[in-house]
Amino acid sequence: MKKSVLVPLFAAMFLAACGQSPIKPANAADKAATAPAPNGIQLPADYADWRLIAPAYRSDKQHVRAILGNDTAIRAARAGNTQPWPDGSILAKLVWKEAPHEKWPTAMEAGQFVHVEIMVKDAKRHAETGGWGYARWVGKDLKPYGKDAAFVAECHGCHMPVQDADFVFTKPVKLP
Amino acid sequence: MKKSVLVPLFAAMFLAACGQSPIKPANAADKAATAPAPNGIQLPADYADWRLIAPAYRSDKQHVRAILGNDTAIRAARAGNTQPWPDGSILAKLVWKEAPHEKWPTAMEAGQFVHVEIMVKDAKRHAETGGWGYARWVGKDLKPYGKDAAFVAECHGCHMPVQDADFVFTKPVKLP
Repeated sequence: MKKSVLVPLFAAMFLAACGQSPIKPANAADKAATAPAPNGIQLPADYADWRLIAPAYRSDKQHVRAILGNDTAIRAARAGNTQPWPDGSILAKLVWKEAPHEKWPTAMEAGQFVHVEIMVKDAKRHAETGGWGYARWVGKDLKPYGKDAAFVAECHGCHMPVQDADFVFTKPVKLP
Repeated sequence: MKKSVLVPLFAAMFLAACGQSPIKPANAADKAATAPAPNGIQLPADYADWRLIAPAYRSDKQHVRAILGNDTAIRAARAGNTQPWPDGSILAKLVWKEAPHEKWPTAMEAGQFVHVEIMVKDAKRHAETGGWGYARWVGKDLKPYGKDAAFVAECHGCHMPVQDADFVFTKPVKLP
């Protein structure tokens, strides 16, 4: 096969296979500049493009939430391979204050952005915290949470009640 | 450049650019057999892979919800191009009964699946209902809602309060 044939062939395969083309948010450049958490964990630049693990609501805090997963996490969730979650899984919890819809007040929308939190699975690197590395970025300016790397003790402590679920509260939805 | 160089080069470009590879749910084959709504609208087979438009909560029904969008809808939402939404936009609203987490009872998870609803934008085809075609599939067996095609009058009626927002209740989240 000649080069002149191969180039459009690969280009076509490329377009056909990329079912979900990346769609850059307007602020992609800014996000690359987000400061890492005090333990060195970076906010994945493409987290807004990740697929749904589950929605949630906190009745005590009036928070509406969405938990997304990267490809490794979505693959594991759909295969039921979460005891434990495989290395490379990343879960992102996106949290907003509820805001009643102005035309339908019992519908609580995502209002003020509260924070984004991630859990990164690396059984060796994060062995001291159940195999998960934790990080949180607060508010619209994504300020890293925690004074120093010791902040993860707080995260891990809160996740201890779900030790039997590999420290993950969220049960991935199974869509019909 | 020789063919022997081009092939791995294109393969690498291909893998690098396909940030989100399609991950088939276990029931992809079954879903293709989902009956269409009485107005002929089909449930898009890949809706579980769509990206997040917004989470939501209904305080009257105790529903946790996630609204996803296909590529056209996500592109429009991120560009602020939703007055009106462009033809080809599809929004999917996924609805579950809330279920208190057994280890954290103020955290409401996605419990029993209630239904999936979609809105399909086609200004000409659906001119009588504001340019949107509506459909709903109820329960885990995705039973099409409505006796006949007239069911859309009910959908459109409920969406009339948000006529000024091109009949869409949900305001897409802008992730930082």
